[in-house]
Amino acid sequence: MENIKVVIWGFGAMGSGMAKMLLKKQGVEIVGVCDKDPNKIDKSMYEVLGADRGDKREVIIKGNEQEVFTEKCADIALLCTDSYVKGAFNKIKYIAEKKINIISTAEEMAYSKAQSPELSEEIDKIAKANGVSVLGTGINPGLIMDLLAVVLTGACEEVESIECERVNSLSPFGPTVMEEQGVGIKAEDFIKRVEDGSLAGHVGFAESIRMITDAIGWKLDGPISQGCKPIISNVYRETPYAKVEAGNVAGVNMVGHGMVNGERKINMIHPQQIEPELEGVSTGDYIRIKGVPDINMAINPEIPGGIGTIAMCVNMIPHVISARAGLKTMLDLPVPRAIMGDMRDLIQL
Amino acid sequence: MENIKVVIWGFGAMGSGMAKMLLKKQGVEIVGVCDKDPNKIDKSMYEVLGADRGDKREVIIKGNEQEVFTEKCADIALLCTDSYVKGAFNKIKYIAEKKINIISTAEEMAYSKAQSPELSEEIDKIAKANGVSVLGTGINPGLIMDLLAVVLTGACEEVESIECERVNSLSPFGPTVMEEQGVGIKAEDFIKRVEDGSLAGHVGFAESIRMITDAIGWKLDGPISQGCKPIISNVYRETPYAKVEAGNVAGVNMVGHGMVNGERKINMIHPQQIEPELEGVSTGDYIRIKGVPDINMAINPEIPGGIGTIAMCVNMIPHVISARAGLKTMLDLPVPRAIMGDMRDLIQL
Repeated sequence: MENIKVVIWGFGAMGSGMAKMLLKKQGVEIVGVCDKDPNKIDKSMYEVLGADRGDKREVIIKGNEQEVFTEKCADIALLCTDSYVKGAFNKIKYIAEKKINIISTAEEMAYSKAQSPELSEEIDKIAKANGVSVLGTGINPGLIMDLLAVVLTGACEEVESIECERVNSLSPFGPTVMEEQGVGIKAEDFIKRVEDGSLAGHVGFAESIRMITDAIGWKLDGPISQGCKPIISNVYRETPYAKVEAGNVAGVNMVGHGMVNGERKINMIHPQQIEPELEGVSTGDYIRIKGVPDINMAINPEIPGGIGTIAMCVNMIPHVISARAGLKTMLDLPVPRAIMGDMRDLIQL
Repeated sequence: MENIKVVIWGFGAMGSGMAKMLLKKQGVEIVGVCDKDPNKIDKSMYEVLGADRGDKREVIIKGNEQEVFTEKCADIALLCTDSYVKGAFNKIKYIAEKKINIISTAEEMAYSKAQSPELSEEIDKIAKANGVSVLGTGINPGLIMDLLAVVLTGACEEVESIECERVNSLSPFGPTVMEEQGVGIKAEDFIKRVEDGSLAGHVGFAESIRMITDAIGWKLDGPISQGCKPIISNVYRETPYAKVEAGNVAGVNMVGHGMVNGERKINMIHPQQIEPELEGVSTGDYIRIKGVPDINMAINPEIPGGIGTIAMCVNMIPHVISARAGLKTMLDLPVPRAIMGDMRDLIQL
């Protein structure tokens, strides 16, 4: 069997991180990369990564998808360009029609029917017509605040409520994340930006909540509720990409919940900030299930978001290639797992 | 669609617990029960359970499988009779040839090829020839010390080693478990019984370790190593089914490990005892992954073994009915989940 062939569309922190991870794995090779950044276009992927090419085939980063994708040029594409289904849709269509399977990092694609049921049906149809499968995944949504909770309910006879809390540090992230989450700005600017929609905070509660409720057979009473508040720092905090004066915004505290039969059955708590330990906040991932039995899970510190998303996307490659055609979610496929052997050994067609 | 029809073979603590759980679920009904216990034979299942029959069909417990199983009389059988593949094999064959899917509680069936590769191939052939699927599962092996660790590695780029620790209480268990684990006996008798093979301790390390290594693509250097030591109580301990004098055995401490490329890559620690809190031991489930990133997970207290096994087996029913024919493991199927809606909604054929 030939190596699994991968194309990466979007070569920012996630896409390039996946490339680095793939270079260490057996039975897989990168055959194309596409990115809009003029600093990367027409350069060698290996040069951009600062990685040794060894005897691997050269990969030149292209600015235009037409220069990268031909029919069946790869087994799978890692699409690392968008957060929303709307933005990803045309790209997914384009890749699927080249008869290539797809993993998308778009948060909304982790459970796209939560907010885009029509586009999800469309994607499912296009995927089936072209004999490919499409998955959205990542660390969150994708694992920590949804799939992992679902797995733990597998040990429950009954479930009354589920609370997922993710307390994480934004310190390792770059300027894009700082800007998106409002790190370093003034509290009043934060509130303005939430109002005008330019500060989204975490994208994924709608998807995580719907993934859980669909998985265990609860029907949501209506759309989920969510709130987004600034975490105001009492002290000066600094990272390579952010400076936060005392009194300004160190991060975002997001909460969300889903109602089932008039009761708050799902609760999400997700404060993200730089340098949380400066104010005695320790990071971690928590799942608290009330049911038969109760389950209280903690992961300390939290699973880091960047590495986690990179790993989840790469690790799901063989499952997506093996899946029957259509739009898939993490609920449909076998469990994620690290790949320490030859990636081809996990393909089951 | 008609209700999912279930037969239960073996109506001890596990089988009868699954029956109680099933009675609370929608879209599923119990159509037959088989058990050797003369106190149960020819009695109503509802009477034995102390449950209200309501308008449900009567189910009379039979002592002989021929009185229970006819071709396609059920969609699935829950086989709760054995710990070992050898003991379960003929029953699995018998049920599969009646064209009925199977979930087995036998610990070795959770990853049967670890210790019984030939019988596993045989089961796979028989299952495929009859168009049914066969799964072994439970809380451990089945989830806590294997599948859950595998799921968490999904967030890892690299894995160096995995340690699973389960510190649990045997207090809720009945006389069979006390006898099997040597609770209440003298230390010297414990050692004799380990030597003559009449005290097995926990069955499942070989299966859990092999499930993990197969999942992530490690090849074990050889058979796993394991050790089994008595937990000697310093104080008097008592439960409804056991009395332990100070100086005698309160439980079993099992350890096991798997070697990969000459390194100890998988480590299992599993002390089980009655009333651990009397000596300040708090119970819990722990998974410690060294890798990129490290992951440290804790569940406190531990997920209880009895309820957990009952729930895992019942919750996997729709996945097993939906699966392609053959012998399956938890690695092949979508993630376990609680079923709070109609069980039929989860069937995907």
